[in-house]
Amino acid sequence: MRVPYETMVKEFTRVLEKYGFTEERAKDAAEIFAQNSLAGVQSHGLNRFPRVVDYLKKGEIDPKVEATCTASFGAMERWDGHRGFGPLNAKRAMNRAVALAHQYGIGLVALGNNNHWMRGGTYGWEAADQGCIGICWSNTCPNMPAWGAKEPRIGNNPLILAVPRSNGEHIMVDLAMSQFSYGKLETTRLAGKQLPVPGGYDEDGNLSTDPEAIEKSKRSLPIGFWKGSGLSILLDMIATILTDSNSVAKIGTFGDEIGLIQIMIAIDPGKFQDAHVTDEIIESIMADVSKSEPVQEGGEVRCPGVGEHRKRRDNLANGVECDEGKWNEVLAM
Amino acid sequence: MRVPYETMVKEFTRVLEKYGFTEERAKDAAEIFAQNSLAGVQSHGLNRFPRVVDYLKKGEIDPKVEATCTASFGAMERWDGHRGFGPLNAKRAMNRAVALAHQYGIGLVALGNNNHWMRGGTYGWEAADQGCIGICWSNTCPNMPAWGAKEPRIGNNPLILAVPRSNGEHIMVDLAMSQFSYGKLETTRLAGKQLPVPGGYDEDGNLSTDPEAIEKSKRSLPIGFWKGSGLSILLDMIATILTDSNSVAKIGTFGDEIGLIQIMIAIDPGKFQDAHVTDEIIESIMADVSKSEPVQEGGEVRCPGVGEHRKRRDNLANGVECDEGKWNEVLAM
Repeated sequence: MRVPYETMVKEFTRVLEKYGFTEERAKDAAEIFAQNSLAGVQSHGLNRFPRVVDYLKKGEIDPKVEATCTASFGAMERWDGHRGFGPLNAKRAMNRAVALAHQYGIGLVALGNNNHWMRGGTYGWEAADQGCIGICWSNTCPNMPAWGAKEPRIGNNPLILAVPRSNGEHIMVDLAMSQFSYGKLETTRLAGKQLPVPGGYDEDGNLSTDPEAIEKSKRSLPIGFWKGSGLSILLDMIATILTDSNSVAKIGTFGDEIGLIQIMIAIDPGKFQDAHVTDEIIESIMADVSKSEPVQEGGEVRCPGVGEHRKRRDNLANGVECDEGKWNEVLAM
Repeated sequence: MRVPYETMVKEFTRVLEKYGFTEERAKDAAEIFAQNSLAGVQSHGLNRFPRVVDYLKKGEIDPKVEATCTASFGAMERWDGHRGFGPLNAKRAMNRAVALAHQYGIGLVALGNNNHWMRGGTYGWEAADQGCIGICWSNTCPNMPAWGAKEPRIGNNPLILAVPRSNGEHIMVDLAMSQFSYGKLETTRLAGKQLPVPGGYDEDGNLSTDPEAIEKSKRSLPIGFWKGSGLSILLDMIATILTDSNSVAKIGTFGDEIGLIQIMIAIDPGKFQDAHVTDEIIESIMADVSKSEPVQEGGEVRCPGVGEHRKRRDNLANGVECDEGKWNEVLAM
């Protein structure tokens, strides 16, 4: 079914207010969920909403706690999320990084002791909406073996890079260090399909495209084998150093995936050139990439984010495509 | 054969002075080559030295030109490399980023219109030697197809992350966005071996571990398939925006791989905590990773850089392991 974006925001806001958010914070949080749905990322939009409401009911998320700055030096700040509502803390942190970038050219906010930020792309996009390049990442619970290891001890620590376009259609990558998320393995298994490329090892130690075999072995594959493994470890080290908060290993001792770290970096290219110069640079690179001869006849070679722009436009014009059952669940809340 | 590190520096310095470097710049450049050899990365150390001397003879590198700052705003600067000697320009740029980090917590220098920086790890290590987290990357000539494309239009744009340890044995990843470099494909082919994992596609479009087949098709594989492809495009976009210099596509029009961009980011964790706290964080993550049960019986699961530390120690104690023919070439210069 299709639900108008504004209706979605309104309903999410209503429910969040009911569970203790102030009006303003409810609307901000609702927009994050609705925007993720608008971008087609339902796993961190509508479909995740009921679970978050469950956490609110159980008191596992305090809707009133806000992240605070605990240390500051020039263009760099350290914040404590006090294990509040992850996405609002993360958004404030990126907004602060953007303010620092406006003041110093570049700004960094290291947010420790926070909770899950839902979709990392939210914060890269947030920076880009304010004319900044956004670079951000989160650590996670241990969910992937290091290269050469059997059991999960490193995180799939998603990394986001975004560049701003003045038409609002930013170019962005949002990528976990694992080739596929556990959510993707599950949906592929439920659809009775195989992964398009190997996503991990089966229990006999062979590379596999069978989602079920990988779920069983818990041996999901880092992107680029040893490369994604090393990148994941370094992203966790930098995050833990900058916050003196919980590393992936420490998060693994908490039972649930809580107390995460997010690093937000914003860079303001507007200090060096007008937005139209930045636009032209991005468009010229996009044009060159899309000139590529596709492997599949009639195929298309696109820059990251272009598929999402189409989805957004369609969802804005025709209502957000979503699961009727999930939507009715929200209406009944 | 084994050559003492100091002898290597002395000989490189002698040759570089002969080809027009001032004494000080010759020594600095010599140290970069010798350090890369010390770390075991001969492809960007001794083995590359004769080619660089060739370029000097031909006048393709001006040993006297230095990068200059062309724009500055707070913690962020834009530099022009004037197509001088890549590694010295890159080192100065990272040193300036470190100085900015000391002043503002974080610093960024965007160096456009430079030349090849040899080994990117040099500059991550440089930041770490001064107590900073180093993040840097370079763009390259087009040498990899975008995901879904047949011909190379994107770069393998190496990305480096380094964290500082006060014992000088920093933890670092230095990774190209391609699964294997063309150099690695060549050495594997010459050794008559197969790649350990698929490194690209053969001319029939099948994933392949045969280096020769990939050299022929020019279809090397991005790390994580679509993920490394997207990351490569974004790294190029950010680099081009921050310098208004040459994108991968533009470099592809120059014939040779010249006029590259490097982005240097330094972050000073010393503003928030003593170095021993940072050391403890890094060591605790290293300890957790190395507790992993290895896939190979008797194997070892290591953090990135640990193998290099061993190589450095061995090469410092026993002389740098190197190819006798290449070394004699240098002695005869």
